[in-house]
Amino acid sequence: MRSFINFTPGPSQLYFTVEDHVRKAFRDSVPTLSHRSKVFESIYRETANGLRALLGVPDNWYILFTSSATEVWERIIENLVEEQSHHFVNGAFSLRFCEIAQQLNRKAAFTRVLEGQAFINNTIPSPAELIALTHNETSTGVSLPLEFIHGFKARYPNSLVAVDAVSSLPYPQFDFTKIDTLFFSVQKGFGLPAGLGVWMINEACLSKAETLLSKGICIGSYHNLVSLVSHARKNQTPETPNVLGIYLLGKVVQDMLRRGIEVIRRETEYKAALMYNLLTQHDQIKPFVTAKEHQSKTVIVADCGNYTDSLTKYLQQKGLSPGDGYGKFKTTQLRFANFPTHSKEQFELLVDSIEAFKE
Amino acid sequence: MRSFINFTPGPSQLYFTVEDHVRKAFRDSVPTLSHRSKVFESIYRETANGLRALLGVPDNWYILFTSSATEVWERIIENLVEEQSHHFVNGAFSLRFCEIAQQLNRKAAFTRVLEGQAFINNTIPSPAELIALTHNETSTGVSLPLEFIHGFKARYPNSLVAVDAVSSLPYPQFDFTKIDTLFFSVQKGFGLPAGLGVWMINEACLSKAETLLSKGICIGSYHNLVSLVSHARKNQTPETPNVLGIYLLGKVVQDMLRRGIEVIRRETEYKAALMYNLLTQHDQIKPFVTAKEHQSKTVIVADCGNYTDSLTKYLQQKGLSPGDGYGKFKTTQLRFANFPTHSKEQFELLVDSIEAFKE
Repeated sequence: MRSFINFTPGPSQLYFTVEDHVRKAFRDSVPTLSHRSKVFESIYRETANGLRALLGVPDNWYILFTSSATEVWERIIENLVEEQSHHFVNGAFSLRFCEIAQQLNRKAAFTRVLEGQAFINNTIPSPAELIALTHNETSTGVSLPLEFIHGFKARYPNSLVAVDAVSSLPYPQFDFTKIDTLFFSVQKGFGLPAGLGVWMINEACLSKAETLLSKGICIGSYHNLVSLVSHARKNQTPETPNVLGIYLLGKVVQDMLRRGIEVIRRETEYKAALMYNLLTQHDQIKPFVTAKEHQSKTVIVADCGNYTDSLTKYLQQKGLSPGDGYGKFKTTQLRFANFPTHSKEQFELLVDSIEAFKE
Repeated sequence: MRSFINFTPGPSQLYFTVEDHVRKAFRDSVPTLSHRSKVFESIYRETANGLRALLGVPDNWYILFTSSATEVWERIIENLVEEQSHHFVNGAFSLRFCEIAQQLNRKAAFTRVLEGQAFINNTIPSPAELIALTHNETSTGVSLPLEFIHGFKARYPNSLVAVDAVSSLPYPQFDFTKIDTLFFSVQKGFGLPAGLGVWMINEACLSKAETLLSKGICIGSYHNLVSLVSHARKNQTPETPNVLGIYLLGKVVQDMLRRGIEVIRRETEYKAALMYNLLTQHDQIKPFVTAKEHQSKTVIVADCGNYTDSLTKYLQQKGLSPGDGYGKFKTTQLRFANFPTHSKEQFELLVDSIEAFKE
């Protein structure tokens, strides 16, 4: 199979060190480790501590492992919402979070704007136990400004604030005093094989789950927060988890720490600027998100109109694999992931190639 | 790290072809495949069809992927039980299935016998929507006879029969007309890295889930049966799954099909007979399960009493790694997995070593 540079927004290009880590994992028998062994506990600890250092997660937050961010959507609703959540919906993934709340028989209210747009003000029309925000809408490339996300807590101190950062972490620097739970999956910005979600929560989330449980409300079984946290305190998981995935995440996080999160952020901004500059000046291809403050740095969506198909083929001939537009935009847009694994050189090649594209 | 032959009952020794398959997967960019791509659909199809051929799963059953067998416990209760399940409990894992039903606020009745024992007759005292059976109790090495498992359907045609075969498949040959759902996780008999569960269901299970849903009962969200089956029909999954895990399972199943399931079954029985013969004749070390018809072929538990620690060290010096006893038996028992990856030669070495053991 020919090797491409993969710019799809997930599963995306592997982080460039992953294959070496897999080889070492097999040499060290990581795939056959018991999840009740001391070695596994040290792997859990290393991965969790690495994430704390990389993302600035406070010591009093818990770092939990699930099988996907999709699972986290479900667990958040089960554990943190008795009756009513409120969702800010501006694309397919923020909508799915809201639908999951409805499937779990909660009253899920929402504020909805068109694809490609963000929200005007951070108010909710009626009280909600949980406010659900999607930092980076992977389907459209809209990123909510951090001030917007951080603006809820003071206004709604009794609501928990949940942030889906599936396709933006490790880039954004959240203020953990202004949010209550944050989650992502590893096959996007962390460049790992799919099959692992990371769910970070504060004490308020645990208390809420305990309260629901004490009322006799079902909060799930092995992956309810009480069970997850009681195991996490021992650096364990309730079930046999994706041990290899947790190990690989820890190793990639160590690699990112060596590179430095500030370098990663600066490079992310440099690469995003290259692409948006090009799109803004291009005759045929335009940025889908026009408001500069809402343009995602990590998933850049281009309106390519009639050129979508020919541009895709042209890029593929150069060994560059763009992501399709999402859903109804499949034939008119392309999406470009700008993750830590995509080097400046790869992005310069991508941008230069698009610039040189002639129909 | 020194290389051991791993006889722990899970995660156990990798199937001997896994590392080669991982190398090929990375060469072919499997870890970065989109789960909405045609290539992924063909991987799903190959794995599901391979399992059908290997285990004799009928064409009208659905083969679904979850993150673990623990998850399947939860999903079975959510989707197949409105009020009442009945569990046959004879160890830690059959008990956990029952507890999960209780955590999900169902009335979970149970028939319980002591560890090391099986059940006298297959009757339940009061009607249950689901009868939950653990074919092979990994904690104690008790295997329920297939006639026992198959005996419920005629007696209780209105109950669904669920069979946990986590640590016995691919060895047992179930009669799929006598059960309704069957599941396992890949890190035991299939010798794969943990992080994937396989859930097989018939049409009656799907109908039950649809009935609960139509009554407004919550059956979960992305992994409810309606969602799982509608995606499985397209050889897809609702969420981004453990793509690499599904690929590796398919490859190992193909390897097993080439070897032949009958050969695997015969070798399993040969290796089990070697071990039980030894234990029956040994002065200090005895089989924990004494009734021959309940002795598991795939997880053999030895009562080692005061010799547990010294036998463990002795075996480890020979590069043989036994599994600890489970729970309260940790200091007095050892468990030996007898899975398809454990060769006749490896088992002969194990048995000869135990035979030569002198305190």
